[in-house]
Amino acid sequence: MEKPCYVGMIGAGTCSDAHYNIARTLGFEIGKRGWYVVCGGLGGVMEGAAKGCTEAGSITVGLLPGLKKESANPYIRVPVPTGLGEGRNLLVVSASDVVVAIGGGYGTLSEIGLALKAGKPVIGLETWKDIEGIEYVSDCDEALMMIGRLL
Amino acid sequence: MEKPCYVGMIGAGTCSDAHYNIARTLGFEIGKRGWYVVCGGLGGVMEGAAKGCTEAGSITVGLLPGLKKESANPYIRVPVPTGLGEGRNLLVVSASDVVVAIGGGYGTLSEIGLALKAGKPVIGLETWKDIEGIEYVSDCDEALMMIGRLL
Amino acid sequence: MEKPCYVGMIGAGTCSDAHYNIARTLGFEIGKRGWYVVCGGLGGVMEGAAKGCTEAGSITVGLLPGLKKESANPYIRVPVPTGLGEGRNLLVVSASDVVVAIGGGYGTLSEIGLALKAGKPVIGLETWKDIEGIEYVSDCDEALMMIGRLL
Amino acid sequence: MEKPCYVGMIGAGTCSDAHYNIARTLGFEIGKRGWYVVCGGLGGVMEGAAKGCTEAGSITVGLLPGLKKESANPYIRVPVPTGLGEGRNLLVVSASDVVVAIGGGYGTLSEIGLALKAGKPVIGLETWKDIEGIEYVSDCDEALMMIGRLL
Repeated sequence: MEKPCYVGMIGAGTCSDAHYNIARTLGFEIGKRGWYVVCGGLGGVMEGAAKGCTEAGSITVGLLPGLKKESANPYIRVPVPTGLGEGRNLLVVSASDVVVAIGGGYGTLSEIGLALKAGKPVIGLETWKDIEGIEYVSDCDEALMMIGRLL
Repeated sequence: MEKPCYVGMIGAGTCSDAHYNIARTLGFEIGKRGWYVVCGGLGGVMEGAAKGCTEAGSITVGLLPGLKKESANPYIRVPVPTGLGEGRNLLVVSASDVVVAIGGGYGTLSEIGLALKAGKPVIGLETWKDIEGIEYVSDCDEALMMIGRLL
Repeated sequence: MEKPCYVGMIGAGTCSDAHYNIARTLGFEIGKRGWYVVCGGLGGVMEGAAKGCTEAGSITVGLLPGLKKESANPYIRVPVPTGLGEGRNLLVVSASDVVVAIGGGYGTLSEIGLALKAGKPVIGLETWKDIEGIEYVSDCDEALMMIGRLL
Repeated sequence: MEKPCYVGMIGAGTCSDAHYNIARTLGFEIGKRGWYVVCGGLGGVMEGAAKGCTEAGSITVGLLPGLKKESANPYIRVPVPTGLGEGRNLLVVSASDVVVAIGGGYGTLSEIGLALKAGKPVIGLETWKDIEGIEYVSDCDEALMMIGRLL
């Protein structure tokens, strides 16, 4: 089986409609290309991205902080309960070929740090500013082009 | 999306043909029922189980010790590189609703301990003997019936 | 600073007085030799071993499942809250140069498996039976001699 | 045994003499107060802090990314090999009562994110700028006063 490309979608578990919709649109385009969405499995940006990717018929993987599959959002096809708490952030990063950060708080910041430390490309959209190493983009189209270039 | 049942398939990364075939047959029956196989993603029993489950059209999740998706066996549809080494054994157990141990060495023994500690049902087939709490079965059919009863 | 030898002391968090006393005596002898006791930091065998080692003036390290230092038993000089739950079992094993299992349940079984998998020597005293690779001893003196031989 | 206060000292594994000396001075003051230094156990800021704390006669804990105690810097009294790679960053944060970041790169950024996410106080000295939640200080004395206030 050919190994699929994994796009890590990171961002806050509670987010604005604007960020949710960006995540969903990106998730859809990712899914259309046969790539998978990997994320933390909860709400907000993670849910938007998973929803879009599922609508496009591809697979979504949710690496959950807790031990219950049921805590995943409804669009996660492969929930992976880890019981590691925020330790699952490292797993999201380790599994991803490229990471897209949309908005986000401290958990997202930790994932950005872990991804850059691991040498993974990080694309940022309205997220933590002025972090050297992030490829900042300003909308969905730019993000998608950047993913294509970096994969 | 309805959350699928996960059957954790554990056993040695190098195994006899007999164990490989048992794992494959079980994996196929698991897949036919729409359940997923979760495993450590490498060879031997993990590969047999993944092969069967894939042949039945269901999803296989491989929680890998290393950081490379490419280290998964060819029948893993969702490889999850963890970089946790043997620490991924706990993840296999945490993600599983029921665990089936076929043969196996020390890694399998650690997974049996972790599963029983977490209160997960463990089915054993020609594996570590005389461990209270394991539901021992003697062939594939018995294992399948036991999975059905325990899920 | 010369790196000290670490003896991993594993066993149930609730144990008989007999096992507690064996653990304490062993912990004392370990501490007298300037070695450290590493354990899961909670009660039972872990507490007995830590108490003895502290009484001998050496250092005790408790790798705790939760996030609170206060959950450590009173004889742990260096509590390390991990938040990893049973995932901390692997850390106990990884930190140890040799592991002594006294009695114990499923958590101990998982640690035995992880230790043997990692190639660490495991000494067993009234613990899980018939596990190839464990050096079984029948009392405190034998355990101590075996530790000395294996370090 | 009264549980000691843990100051997490984070920063790059290779650093300027200026940062090394700040870390060492801070480590010394921390040790003088009977507090422990917790860190990643390697060089640079981690070594400076451990050196100072050891010189003051207190205990230093190094949560190492790898599996060898010998990889710790010479001033780590309690090396804890974890084998978790960058996953040990979360352990440093989880064990700390307060975190001091001096300079630092992406690993430090991930620790800052994890600490703030966990609600731990973070003191920053010439480190990642403009992160809401960090208590920025400009020298050793200010850092020490801030530690005292936050513990």
